[in-house]
Amino acid sequence: MSTEAPPVVASRAALEELLDLVARGELTRLPALVGEMHPSDIADLLASVPSEDQRLEVLKALPTEVASETLAEMEEDEDRAELLTELGARRGAALLQELADDDAADLLGELDPGDRDRMLAALPSEEAGEIRELLRYGEETAGGLMTTSLVSVSTTATAAEAIAEIREKGREVEEFYTVFVVGRRGLLEGTVPLDDLILADPGDPVQSLVVPVPATVLPDTDQEEVGRVMGRYNLVNIPVVNDEGSLLGRITFDDVIDVIEAETTEDILRLAGVSDEEELKGGWVDSVRSRLPWLVLNLVTAGVAASVILKFEEVISQLTFLAFLMPVIAALGGNTGTQALAVTIRRIAVGDELPGGRFQVVGKEVLVGLLNGLVLGVVFALFAYVYVPEDGLRIGVVVLLAMWANIVVAGFAGALIPTVLKRLGADPAVASSVFVHTLTDLVGFIMVLSLARGLLF
Amino acid sequence: MSTEAPPVVASRAALEELLDLVARGELTRLPALVGEMHPSDIADLLASVPSEDQRLEVLKALPTEVASETLAEMEEDEDRAELLTELGARRGAALLQELADDDAADLLGELDPGDRDRMLAALPSEEAGEIRELLRYGEETAGGLMTTSLVSVSTTATAAEAIAEIREKGREVEEFYTVFVVGRRGLLEGTVPLDDLILADPGDPVQSLVVPVPATVLPDTDQEEVGRVMGRYNLVNIPVVNDEGSLLGRITFDDVIDVIEAETTEDILRLAGVSDEEELKGGWVDSVRSRLPWLVLNLVTAGVAASVILKFEEVISQLTFLAFLMPVIAALGGNTGTQALAVTIRRIAVGDELPGGRFQVVGKEVLVGLLNGLVLGVVFALFAYVYVPEDGLRIGVVVLLAMWANIVVAGFAGALIPTVLKRLGADPAVASSVFVHTLTDLVGFIMVLSLARGLLF
Repeated sequence: MSTEAPPVVASRAALEELLDLVARGELTRLPALVGEMHPSDIADLLASVPSEDQRLEVLKALPTEVASETLAEMEEDEDRAELLTELGARRGAALLQELADDDAADLLGELDPGDRDRMLAALPSEEAGEIRELLRYGEETAGGLMTTSLVSVSTTATAAEAIAEIREKGREVEEFYTVFVVGRRGLLEGTVPLDDLILADPGDPVQSLVVPVPATVLPDTDQEEVGRVMGRYNLVNIPVVNDEGSLLGRITFDDVIDVIEAETTEDILRLAGVSDEEELKGGWVDSVRSRLPWLVLNLVTAGVAASVILKFEEVISQLTFLAFLMPVIAALGGNTGTQALAVTIRRIAVGDELPGGRFQVVGKEVLVGLLNGLVLGVVFALFAYVYVPEDGLRIGVVVLLAMWANIVVAGFAGALIPTVLKRLGADPAVASSVFVHTLTDLVGFIMVLSLARGLLF
Repeated sequence: MSTEAPPVVASRAALEELLDLVARGELTRLPALVGEMHPSDIADLLASVPSEDQRLEVLKALPTEVASETLAEMEEDEDRAELLTELGARRGAALLQELADDDAADLLGELDPGDRDRMLAALPSEEAGEIRELLRYGEETAGGLMTTSLVSVSTTATAAEAIAEIREKGREVEEFYTVFVVGRRGLLEGTVPLDDLILADPGDPVQSLVVPVPATVLPDTDQEEVGRVMGRYNLVNIPVVNDEGSLLGRITFDDVIDVIEAETTEDILRLAGVSDEEELKGGWVDSVRSRLPWLVLNLVTAGVAASVILKFEEVISQLTFLAFLMPVIAALGGNTGTQALAVTIRRIAVGDELPGGRFQVVGKEVLVGLLNGLVLGVVFALFAYVYVPEDGLRIGVVVLLAMWANIVVAGFAGALIPTVLKRLGADPAVASSVFVHTLTDLVGFIMVLSLARGLLF
């Protein structure tokens, strides 16, 4: 066993060896090549094979249980749905049968409806039914993340009976960390940690070992909330229950790590004005499609904001120094707004709230803006004072007031807009930054130009 | 048991009840109030108590094992170090003894050196020694995250002997999901999943049940890398080994969820120009301190970039329309740069790489920029053409070329700068955005003004 963490990206050497096998038609030697590799590593290797035909050949040459886990570890943007479809209904169903029901449902959810139905028809009816149930839930909800595969025992069992039950059912359940305890009508009563069960006397009633679960979620709970609750209570899996409290399934921590990563990527990209449909590994066409609409919107908003400049042409032609001041003051406002936005959006994402409630953060940002704006305004006003000696004092006052006002407005808007969006049930990151930057451009330009007109001429 | 997820923030009612108990000096009734509450919830409740004296009173009134877990669940920015110090060495050491060694080390690491030594001296020497070992590792490394508390069995044991060993040691080890198997000189051979062990025949040798671990980390592995590896291989805990491959400890998934959250917050805030020392829950003084230096730097860079405008005053006074064009073209460049930055930084964070290696992404962003820049340039040039009929064609050309060039430069820089920073071993998010925006301002202003001077007059 190696003492080093394995490389996170499929090594070039393994890929070349694989392509060599494909080229020489010696794919029977494939199982030896992938040997004890982890499915995540095989998935990377497979995704690096350039042509889809070759990827399909490789997938077909893998043993069924390896091929299924490999598909489960591939990303949606690595065209795994196409591979599964190409395998055909019979071979595809054989792979799906090897997978946990949540992984199988995720894969099937990516297929075209027709292909999905053909593949479900090729599955044994019980498994097809379970997967159909899971497919009913929204992709980004607890129901969409959960697996129905779990180990549960009855409140009325003894420790020995429970262990016998686990022996029998446990082989099929991957990664069961906790044994759920259910009462009448499937009502979730709590859990018995596996270690407590082993340490108990065989005759002890399970009832005496039950510990309450710190949290449960409903099938329609948003995945972001699921991640927050599991992170908060350090849960390795969380039970999903219906309105009556009956156990429906569980969500394991590894799905939640994926969720946290996906939600974070979404937040960062949205904040930067990139549609969350842009895949990190996607090609340039995807990127143009996901970013251009945003940039066009931005062209309109920046153009509208800057158009106030056109109303003040006579002011600018008298003092072109203003053309230098405006973009600097607008830029500082924009940056202050971005700071306030990022802190507010991140605070909403991790569920941190200030003791005084949601709107206290707006007051704080205004206070921060008053201070930062004063410092920046004074520094920049001094520069202007020195640079334009003939009318330095009055230009200094214009700069100070314009900068100060813009920074306060930026902090206020940067905190208020995502907070209001969140209140309204919208994503706080979406379009916040275009609002804030348009506003700070507008305030910056208007303040400089109207103060200049009022005070200087 | 409630079927709803409990509220993530300490409820106002519980807080008022608590403050009422404090006010009436009836803290002996506290254990009944917190009852079966999860330590995370008690921690929130405690953090909401306004005065530090009252927080200390509440902490003292909690049973030792509850108080210790509550401290462990509090955040560093909720002044838990002050609370621990105020408890004094004896009471503090009693709390620390209840905690897992990694949690105890984290808490001690936040104390002043003098207080830390006093508290360590009050601990039994064996535990103090273990914690001192952990304190040697950097806070953001695998060593800083790991606990030495784990269950391991020898390769030479039978399944029955292993279970007996687990019965004996398992009571003390919190959340042991896997049983590590070690050979001579503590060499890690692999793991035995607890469920396999229960399902095995008692006489089966452990050796026959060993499964290799998909990954290990060294004590000085960066925590971000630990998170990536655990997420990749869906590990509930990962072994930490030394250079020789001997088992030193393990890191559990809950620490990794915290790491992923912390690293994400850091990335988002840095991208927005907020020092990662700013605590999301901190006050306005902290915020001013963490953001003002960045804004001052930004004032300098924006000022330097805009100062090129001062060199072209005669051009602007001849055509004030240019004062309108410049901020729009600079803004679009800035936004394009932010998009490329966000995608590149996020791609680095999640460890996704394009098949052609790190620098392929730069080529892709240039291509995206060529396309987006052409579209935006043509649209804006048409507007300029219509708006300034007397010299529309030539102004249109100025706008088209300036916008196009700026957008291409923005994509290039937005992808290149974080990639190079990463190559150099620096944080790709830090200061990237100030570089990119200064560059896009500069290119935008120079292109508009020099093209205007060359083509129009």
